[in-house]
Amino acid sequence: MKSDVKEVRSHCPVNFALEAVGDRWALLILRDIVFRGKRSYSEFLKSEEGFATNILASRLEHLMACGILTRAEAADDARKAVYSLTAKGLDLVPLLFEMVLWSAKHDPLSEAARIPRLVELIEKNNRKVSAKAMETVRQGEGILRDYVA
Amino acid sequence: MKSDVKEVRSHCPVNFALEAVGDRWALLILRDIVFRGKRSYSEFLKSEEGFATNILASRLEHLMACGILTRAEAADDARKAVYSLTAKGLDLVPLLFEMVLWSAKHDPLSEAARIPRLVELIEKNNRKVSAKAMETVRQGEGILRDYVA
Repeated sequence: MKSDVKEVRSHCPVNFALEAVGDRWALLILRDIVFRGKRSYSEFLKSEEGFATNILASRLEHLMACGILTRAEAADDARKAVYSLTAKGLDLVPLLFEMVLWSAKHDPLSEAARIPRLVELIEKNNRKVSAKAMETVRQGEGILRDYVA
Repeated sequence: MKSDVKEVRSHCPVNFALEAVGDRWALLILRDIVFRGKRSYSEFLKSEEGFATNILASRLEHLMACGILTRAEAADDARKAVYSLTAKGLDLVPLLFEMVLWSAKHDPLSEAARIPRLVELIEKNNRKVSAKAMETVRQGEGILRDYVA
């Protein structure tokens, strides 16, 4: 019988987080949900970084195995699956926001220039703006629309 | 002639950060430097997650190409290389700290239990405790010794 706890190489807290989301494709799925309100396989496939179908499918499975995502039938179409962040997944929002802040500072061509208020709020109090964002995402919406200048 | 700016798939700020450090091995190198004060190839090799030599070498090169690490000769041995975080690399400390916080909350076996004060400080004001940590790392020390209970 397999253990409920996914086996990890070490319980160093940095390593633990990395085994869950230390893969760019996994984190791009989370970005799509948090910022853009995407929920379905076909929506993720359209992202500009170009998911390969097998990678997208394996990362969705991985995130579910880690307890970060759940899958359910769409309310309007039982054949369609919609993915949602669990509470554990929503707790990754501050991590995504720190990435935004770092890139805003270090990428001269950053699209973060389109969301100056969000960048400022993250710098000032990430915990606070994350709590607000989590609430929006919990309701199935993406947060980008609230911040695009 | 190659551009100075590394080509990325998109300038979405999450993707930009991921192209730099969206790989668990790259981030484990940063962890080793920040928390443990490791500086050399042979020290990184000893980490419990088990770097393969080719992966370690390629990730060190990648982090240098991204402007996150620099390499210099050791003061006491010109044949030995020591790696240091640049200012751009040090700015990743708050991101590492958010990982620690997330794992402390979601890994029941987390070694973060050994650093309760750091976890508390990150939750309260990551920006502030990160600034202090960056100063320690800038001086070539790891921060773990300051926080192990």
